[in-house]
Amino acid sequence: MTNASICAIGDEILIGQIVDTNSSMIARSLEEIGIKVTRMLSIGDDRDEIIGNLEKELSVSEIVITTGGLGPTKDDITKAALAELSGSGGYVENPTQLGIIHEILHARGLDVLDINKAQALVPDTCEVIPNRLGTAPIMVFRFGGDRFGHPSTLYSLPGVPFEAEGALPDIIVDIREHYSLTSIFHKCVMVSGLAESALSKLIEPWEDSLPADMHLAYLPNQLTGVRLRLSVYGGEKAENERHIDERFAELEPILGDRVYSHSDDTLQNALGTLLRGTGMTLSAAESCTGGMISSLITSVPGASEYYLGSVTSYAVSVKANVLDVPPEYISRYGVVSSEVAGAMAIGVRRLTGSTYSVATTGLAGPGGDERNPVGTVWIGISGPNGTKTAKRVYKNDRKRNIERFTSAALDELRLFILEDLRKQR
Amino acid sequence: MTNASICAIGDEILIGQIVDTNSSMIARSLEEIGIKVTRMLSIGDDRDEIIGNLEKELSVSEIVITTGGLGPTKDDITKAALAELSGSGGYVENPTQLGIIHEILHARGLDVLDINKAQALVPDTCEVIPNRLGTAPIMVFRFGGDRFGHPSTLYSLPGVPFEAEGALPDIIVDIREHYSLTSIFHKCVMVSGLAESALSKLIEPWEDSLPADMHLAYLPNQLTGVRLRLSVYGGEKAENERHIDERFAELEPILGDRVYSHSDDTLQNALGTLLRGTGMTLSAAESCTGGMISSLITSVPGASEYYLGSVTSYAVSVKANVLDVPPEYISRYGVVSSEVAGAMAIGVRRLTGSTYSVATTGLAGPGGDERNPVGTVWIGISGPNGTKTAKRVYKNDRKRNIERFTSAALDELRLFILEDLRKQR
Repeated sequence: MTNASICAIGDEILIGQIVDTNSSMIARSLEEIGIKVTRMLSIGDDRDEIIGNLEKELSVSEIVITTGGLGPTKDDITKAALAELSGSGGYVENPTQLGIIHEILHARGLDVLDINKAQALVPDTCEVIPNRLGTAPIMVFRFGGDRFGHPSTLYSLPGVPFEAEGALPDIIVDIREHYSLTSIFHKCVMVSGLAESALSKLIEPWEDSLPADMHLAYLPNQLTGVRLRLSVYGGEKAENERHIDERFAELEPILGDRVYSHSDDTLQNALGTLLRGTGMTLSAAESCTGGMISSLITSVPGASEYYLGSVTSYAVSVKANVLDVPPEYISRYGVVSSEVAGAMAIGVRRLTGSTYSVATTGLAGPGGDERNPVGTVWIGISGPNGTKTAKRVYKNDRKRNIERFTSAALDELRLFILEDLRKQR
Repeated sequence: MTNASICAIGDEILIGQIVDTNSSMIARSLEEIGIKVTRMLSIGDDRDEIIGNLEKELSVSEIVITTGGLGPTKDDITKAALAELSGSGGYVENPTQLGIIHEILHARGLDVLDINKAQALVPDTCEVIPNRLGTAPIMVFRFGGDRFGHPSTLYSLPGVPFEAEGALPDIIVDIREHYSLTSIFHKCVMVSGLAESALSKLIEPWEDSLPADMHLAYLPNQLTGVRLRLSVYGGEKAENERHIDERFAELEPILGDRVYSHSDDTLQNALGTLLRGTGMTLSAAESCTGGMISSLITSVPGASEYYLGSVTSYAVSVKANVLDVPPEYISRYGVVSSEVAGAMAIGVRRLTGSTYSVATTGLAGPGGDERNPVGTVWIGISGPNGTKTAKRVYKNDRKRNIERFTSAALDELRLFILEDLRKQR
């Protein structure tokens, strides 16, 4: 099995100012192609640390991936350290990256300064994979077996998470070309509305019946639910896929509509898949979720086909004046109530003329009382066949409660539309 | 200076199933008491890896803190590895922890099984700090100078984040008792509206004039701009703070209002600071940002004091019917135009009755044309003294463009309000 080490470079990580999420993202991609990550490390912007640690990693792992330390400013010294480590005789300009640097800065209306141009210079010992999302190129250093006891490759990626993420597919292609890997076949289903522990309890007999060569992983996420992944090592792809599909099909009678996708997916995307091409439209009225439902729905490219818009009614006056929530509902039942959630959904559906609408009113925190503790949310859904409300109570901090509320609202909306579609058949 | 290494133990980290946030949390606490974290690493649940790596870390760092691998199940082997590493002759039961284990399991209505009781057993080579939040005790191993070339301490903490966090204060007390510590002092300013490279160019003479013992770091973020951090090691806290404040004060004539905070901060929080207690209120009208402006504003606890709400007008019909954008503006100037941005801001301000409003209309992608390429946004701001619009062009993918638009809109709004406040004086 091919081994890899992942190394995040940056003083800001070591003082805890930022959490390194790149290493985890890279690890997931490597694991999917059957590479074993034996170690992750985070080190500072320090020449001796960079060279010493990378030499050590290169001598134990065939593949070393670094992130960070490639910015244009003086505190970033990774490139110089890699030049030294690889015995570079000098720097050469990469014309493709220089072009990208010009494009990016021009598009932002900025001048291309010397320090920007310098980012296109790379040690003459490396190959370059252009970074289309940022100014620092991705550098690939290949070492023969004489240097570290085995042939090894060092990939240097930028530290900005979306640039690192953008570079990853090219790195994976390069690794596949240069290493003979044991095949792994993975397939996922996305499950909503169940905590990891409840899901695990529910599917325990199924899990126990899985063959020994099939590995199950639970990958929970606040916003998208639990991703269940089955993996098989070696063998034929088509046969592996058939075996996994058969196993996932057995979940159907246990989980039903809780399975919302048979690939790595999000609830907002599943909603898009339901609505696209039907002519049906969507709107939202948000109180406690503050815009996050709308923000997620519009994160899907092409959402304008079915999404009309939303009202964030943070103030009671906006609930009453814009969404036509009857003021007596608020005084009689309180802002966090089934009645107000339903009226908000009905109000925004009427205002925008959408086919369906979703609304939230709740308490993300701080605050709360006996009747509505922090973490309480009422969700309202309205459509051509009526209006429904549902209450959920979570126990998290403000940020996580908002995420949970949002995810629950998207899921309730999805189930509501599914039920309507089923009736129509 | 006292050095520390932090080591997260667990296979789930190496396959990217969970992001290790413990190390970052521990690093922040160590940094505050002047301990330099030289390295963080993540390793698997493997005897050789644990012993080999920890021996290496103990020989370079006086303090090593591990998290994880202390669960009751068979895959968790950290305790056995630490027993071996420390030359333990056997295990002893810790009565305090055994009591806590009984309490915790009883509270959850569970029986205390033998594997639970075994968690109260610790190697006879360690001291115990009881873990009141979980079943696995915190273990402290002290090594004399003969073993690793200097006296060193290994703290083993549970991997569950809230248990690790709960254990930290006791660890910090223990470290303070056993080590004489050099202080570190950091201070930040937040800078908006400038890319890292442009900022660096602008403040280069200032940066070059910094004394050798002062370290500058650039910490860029899509949503919050660039954080500039100055650090000084050693010396008196009050004097260090004065020195750094003097240096940051020199940035005032260079950066002016671009400095929006003198601590680690966000634009939405800076807006809150401007508005809180003034009686002034805010609303938003979002097209291309889809709800993200509203979502960020409401992520600030207590935002309801000054934030009334927003309209996401994704469909043209919502722009016209809810926000009263004149349809002839849309047909004559296009949806992505100064006129529509201004009309959206005026419309939502009138609709909600807010003091200020911010609006966005643009193209996050895909799509776009010659006149409005992907990445173009018009921002509208309206307030009691009039309405202003501004155009920005970025070149990113959909997700990043939406973040850039959001950040630019929050910043324009902040500058607009600042100018008004200055006129009032």
